[in-house]
Amino acid sequence: MGPENFAADSLREVVEAVARRAGVRAEDAAVLADCLIYAELSGISTHGVSRFGIYIERIKRGLIDPTGQPQVVREATAVAVVDANGCLGQVAGAFAMRKAMESARRHGIGAATVKHSQHFGTAGYYCKLATDEDLIGISLTNSEPAMAPWGSYQAYLGTNPIALGCPTGSEFPIIIDLATSNVARGNVIAAARRGEPIPEGWALDPAGKPTTDAEAGLAGSVLPLGGVKGYALALLVDLLSGVLSGAGFGAGVGSMYKDLTRPADVGHFFAAIDPAAFMPIEQFRERTEALIAEIHGKPPAPGFDAVNVPGEIEFKRRSMRAVEGIPLTADVVSALRNLADEAGIDWPQPLKEDS
Amino acid sequence: MGPENFAADSLREVVEAVARRAGVRAEDAAVLADCLIYAELSGISTHGVSRFGIYIERIKRGLIDPTGQPQVVREATAVAVVDANGCLGQVAGAFAMRKAMESARRHGIGAATVKHSQHFGTAGYYCKLATDEDLIGISLTNSEPAMAPWGSYQAYLGTNPIALGCPTGSEFPIIIDLATSNVARGNVIAAARRGEPIPEGWALDPAGKPTTDAEAGLAGSVLPLGGVKGYALALLVDLLSGVLSGAGFGAGVGSMYKDLTRPADVGHFFAAIDPAAFMPIEQFRERTEALIAEIHGKPPAPGFDAVNVPGEIEFKRRSMRAVEGIPLTADVVSALRNLADEAGIDWPQPLKEDS
Repeated sequence: MGPENFAADSLREVVEAVARRAGVRAEDAAVLADCLIYAELSGISTHGVSRFGIYIERIKRGLIDPTGQPQVVREATAVAVVDANGCLGQVAGAFAMRKAMESARRHGIGAATVKHSQHFGTAGYYCKLATDEDLIGISLTNSEPAMAPWGSYQAYLGTNPIALGCPTGSEFPIIIDLATSNVARGNVIAAARRGEPIPEGWALDPAGKPTTDAEAGLAGSVLPLGGVKGYALALLVDLLSGVLSGAGFGAGVGSMYKDLTRPADVGHFFAAIDPAAFMPIEQFRERTEALIAEIHGKPPAPGFDAVNVPGEIEFKRRSMRAVEGIPLTADVVSALRNLADEAGIDWPQPLKEDS
Repeated sequence: MGPENFAADSLREVVEAVARRAGVRAEDAAVLADCLIYAELSGISTHGVSRFGIYIERIKRGLIDPTGQPQVVREATAVAVVDANGCLGQVAGAFAMRKAMESARRHGIGAATVKHSQHFGTAGYYCKLATDEDLIGISLTNSEPAMAPWGSYQAYLGTNPIALGCPTGSEFPIIIDLATSNVARGNVIAAARRGEPIPEGWALDPAGKPTTDAEAGLAGSVLPLGGVKGYALALLVDLLSGVLSGAGFGAGVGSMYKDLTRPADVGHFFAAIDPAAFMPIEQFRERTEALIAEIHGKPPAPGFDAVNVPGEIEFKRRSMRAVEGIPLTADVVSALRNLADEAGIDWPQPLKEDS
């Protein structure tokens, strides 16, 4: 059976209702749902509702505190240290990014770190919070060990993503969001779930040998982006989001799926920059619009129809899926529907069948 | 003839004296020399004294103002916009990083952009200025078009490096410094200068075909780090250092070697973060030391003797070369010696011959 399409609002309601039944406050459930549905609308399905099940599982086991509230525990003029107090990563992330945004509006730039947090979903979501208010947003997070330091084969660093959002004079913001591995680990997880092999160059098995077995790749390590440079970038992210925040770092970050005995202690780093502190905002809009127009004007290489800017395809997809709905594969539907059934929540009708 | 080794101080004196004769103020000549000799000591020879000749050439042609002074033209609490006024990139870069560092000490974080600047040498140098004072430093710069947006083959973005320095509890700072291309363009320039071919995967010719001809690669484009991700990272750098600063961006950045008719209008972005605003500095030192020890403790993969942290090899090399001298190849010696001769500066004796 092919994917079924669901209205974004229907899925949003299911996620919110299930989260509330699990003890999450209504306003926090709304933030969580907004982040997951943003990912689905954007086509970043590796960070969408397929992650919801493990969040609920960890809440049930006491590893995520559904009523936990993030709190500023240390502050200077333009920076804040946030303790997530074990709350959902999305709740801590949105809170901390808004702190950084406030500071950027007042001081030109601001940053906030987060400790004692969880998987926060797609990093670009927090950048979008900033671009929605004409600010540049930077979002970094560490994650469970998945990648070896260059020169070793034993997983230590996460696939630690780097994300930056930039408001523009065009109809869409630029949203850069990339894992520092050759491919996001979510793709390996998805392949393992479907029982499919992975391409060469994605992962090593636990003994350090290249593998096309998704399960072996998850047990071993994924390869860093471009070799030693990806290692350096993943380390950069862990220095800011793990070491600087006071969270776990390196192997100190717990596995979301494999370790159901302790909180993950994930760390994040957020920064926001106000372009209006650097030049009149209208001038910044013109410059970003010119940049995008120049990139669009470059001749496409063979095999390409157009030259895109990061965030552009996701923007178009969001517009399209707001109308046509979000396609979910059968395994994702089944898992989400089970959560809804357990919580006594009605399951929505699909919009239409997709081939 | 193999490389000859020269004492760092001898080379520093030559660079300073030649720069002063070209009209550079004594204190600015010292900054320039410090940056170039730092690169040579660290083994980053692509960004060392081999670049000095084109700086002097551009000064002679009026494209770099040897007496130009960087100036803050716009400011908010924690950010500054610096106009380099056409001065040397190193002078503008050190000035702006020190602005960001001042702000970090007072407010936890600070940033400074630079417009109307030049090639500023190795990005890591400015991060080292920060780590020398127990601050985290971030240094970004755009550069002349060398890399195509993903989906095109026409050069538009530079190989825009990302650098971050982090003070540690170990004897060396972590210095991450990487071009967002598969390889730094300096390596292609060096191969072209030596008349040698380049490996596959480094560059495309002007028609978009893969090439091993270094000159064709310089005329065409170099490939981004890991494909579309390197494109996104290069764009991230240009957004902050070019678009946000008010400098040239994309194809608006002039070629240092090929365009001797106009100033390059390079843009930079610097940020500094004070770890002491986030936790007691002693705790930060302990955490970074633990991180490094854990990475060192990972088992080496076949073909590796040890697992290193970025900046570690360069630190060891600086210690070694401070004693044994800096090895310069015959072509670099010849070019630098010509500059010294023209300026009437004595050329130093090599320390010893290296095989």
